[in-house]
Amino acid sequence: MDIAMDTVYADVCGSAPVSAQVSDMLQALFSARQCANPNANHALGVQLLERVECARGSIAGLLNVDTDSLIFNSGSSEGCAQVFHDFFERFKHERPVVLYSAIEHACTLQNIRRYSQDGLCAAAIEHHINGLLDTTHLQQLLDAHAGRPTLVCVMAVHNETGVIQPIQEIARQVKAQGGLLFSDMTQAIGKIPVNLHESGVDFAIASGHKFGALPGAGFLYARNRYGLSPLIAGGGQEGGLRGGTQNYPGILSIETALSEKHLKFGAASAEAQQAREAFERELQSMVGESVVIGQQASRVPCVSFIALPGINTRKLQWALNAQGIYITGGSACSDKKLSLSGTVMRLGYPERMAASTVRISIAEEHCRAAYAKILQGIVRALDLPAAGLSPRQAALA
Amino acid sequence: MDIAMDTVYADVCGSAPVSAQVSDMLQALFSARQCANPNANHALGVQLLERVECARGSIAGLLNVDTDSLIFNSGSSEGCAQVFHDFFERFKHERPVVLYSAIEHACTLQNIRRYSQDGLCAAAIEHHINGLLDTTHLQQLLDAHAGRPTLVCVMAVHNETGVIQPIQEIARQVKAQGGLLFSDMTQAIGKIPVNLHESGVDFAIASGHKFGALPGAGFLYARNRYGLSPLIAGGGQEGGLRGGTQNYPGILSIETALSEKHLKFGAASAEAQQAREAFERELQSMVGESVVIGQQASRVPCVSFIALPGINTRKLQWALNAQGIYITGGSACSDKKLSLSGTVMRLGYPERMAASTVRISIAEEHCRAAYAKILQGIVRALDLPAAGLSPRQAALA
Repeated sequence: MDIAMDTVYADVCGSAPVSAQVSDMLQALFSARQCANPNANHALGVQLLERVECARGSIAGLLNVDTDSLIFNSGSSEGCAQVFHDFFERFKHERPVVLYSAIEHACTLQNIRRYSQDGLCAAAIEHHINGLLDTTHLQQLLDAHAGRPTLVCVMAVHNETGVIQPIQEIARQVKAQGGLLFSDMTQAIGKIPVNLHESGVDFAIASGHKFGALPGAGFLYARNRYGLSPLIAGGGQEGGLRGGTQNYPGILSIETALSEKHLKFGAASAEAQQAREAFERELQSMVGESVVIGQQASRVPCVSFIALPGINTRKLQWALNAQGIYITGGSACSDKKLSLSGTVMRLGYPERMAASTVRISIAEEHCRAAYAKILQGIVRALDLPAAGLSPRQAALA
Repeated sequence: MDIAMDTVYADVCGSAPVSAQVSDMLQALFSARQCANPNANHALGVQLLERVECARGSIAGLLNVDTDSLIFNSGSSEGCAQVFHDFFERFKHERPVVLYSAIEHACTLQNIRRYSQDGLCAAAIEHHINGLLDTTHLQQLLDAHAGRPTLVCVMAVHNETGVIQPIQEIARQVKAQGGLLFSDMTQAIGKIPVNLHESGVDFAIASGHKFGALPGAGFLYARNRYGLSPLIAGGGQEGGLRGGTQNYPGILSIETALSEKHLKFGAASAEAQQAREAFERELQSMVGESVVIGQQASRVPCVSFIALPGINTRKLQWALNAQGIYITGGSACSDKKLSLSGTVMRLGYPERMAASTVRISIAEEHCRAAYAKILQGIVRALDLPAAGLSPRQAALA
């Protein structure tokens, strides 16, 4: 099935389409048969390794870090697993502690669950209802566990709300106590400018497919790579920190897509923010009780996480789908589960808010037109405007 | 740099070029913007998940296994790490044992080293000089460790020699003793027909880039997936056994490339075997003392691992390179290390054999022409034919 041009893909936070530039770059790579093992010592291998290392240099430049602090891998889930593996193996005999933002991605929560069974002590840090981390609570937890090896996990940008955490301040707080800060930057890198060096984080993770690169490729940032232990051993690739033949198409695609994104940061983002605010206001005026989660906090452009109490959002999703508008209820990996939104609950909203959420995340290009189509789509799906619940809206409820 | 059409890429065992069919498939996928998160519940996600599951079905069919025994991942190094992680975590309190073929890939050896530090007992199984596993020695080791949880690791096809082990017989031997058999099939799958079910192995691993699919994509086969523990936790993908958004371009590329390879198995392979034998005979008649490692054993087509005692094979590699012929000294990931071939040493050859090896692995298509060019190239590089060492050959020595 070809995706018609007038559809609206509103699940960019789930996965962004592979960019045309990336697709062209890959086509050129494959048609010139520039394929080899980058570790081989013949010219093709040597040249490919050089391209991989140039890509590392470009990406490090865009993120303002040393090249040797970037370890290419298969994406954020692997990066997260390596951070936990490394931390736990290093400190397992010293009563290690993990303090984690209560609304972290399922991947981080799974790792915490796993190592908790082996004795890792874990405590959740609460949030304000606007989606920002409760740094007073973080401080209490840091104080309570003072003297123990501590890893603090805070997503830089939340995957559902799009709320941007003040990572630099959080890093200062964590450092003051001698802890390590791990930030899941999967929804930040490629969406907003990220200065990894200045952020102060010790570890960060990213996935290429969230910003137009190939799925199955990403990287781990480690401020101090010395002593880091590999999750995947192998033939010595990535300085011994990640085995396996380098995924050179994936790595080159990250370079291409991230460069593309960085060229567009700036004025366009401001316009996109305005377009989103107008969209949210319009939607809220149409659907009475709706709440934009994290509305008052600083957020990445073109991401809205909205509670629509009283609306069956699963039915809404399919009604929009029939119009070629593709949204999710929340994170893509929870999209098939019929459960309350953990994020909305943890932020302190009532259950009926958590029961009816939609995430609308679109590309910044042509976002005004996309928002107009989404609004029209919702009007049609819910049979709006009408005071209160219309018969159609009631049927969806 | 475009690779000229008259070059000879003789490092297919290091990495095979991405096939034209795969490249076309990807181009169609990306240009139709069929990109989404396969876990999302909108039509694009649902359709993509269906394609991923169809690909799993096709691949399982080609390899004759249940679909749910294939776990897609980033490739063999990850698969290997998961097998060791799973085995060690499961049995760490029961004095687990690993018996491994002494000439396994560096990745397996690294994992053994790592878990040995945590108490895993490991013993190497010796080989006959022809490259085949010494099954009498395996039996002795199985007997010596009877009653303990045992994982036996034997590559189905060796990455340097191309020798095919009689995996089915080895599996019977291991099963009779109640052990588990893990076979690295990275150099077998896509090169020769593999019937995973009949092979009797408990675990197998594969990497797409070894047979024309995308780098960074592969799979783990687990005969019994129940109780298997994930190496990479995440959002519940792959039945909870491998987290992370599915690498759908990689998975679809494995389906495309493996189907392509399976269509070509048969007559073409027999012809390729003959072409290789003729090439090896010719080379041996030209370079006096040369030895084809594993020559008498059954081998995959178009792979030759040759000791050329007295020749500086690093210089030969570069002399061929200058003629557009790309070979390696051995495995790609060891190709930059100036050391003796561990494989040749472990098989019992003298040091001067191990000091001078080349691996020539080419595509089966047009292999006769490729072999003719390689021979011409070697003649030029070594200034052959001439009795004994010519001045040029002496310079390379």
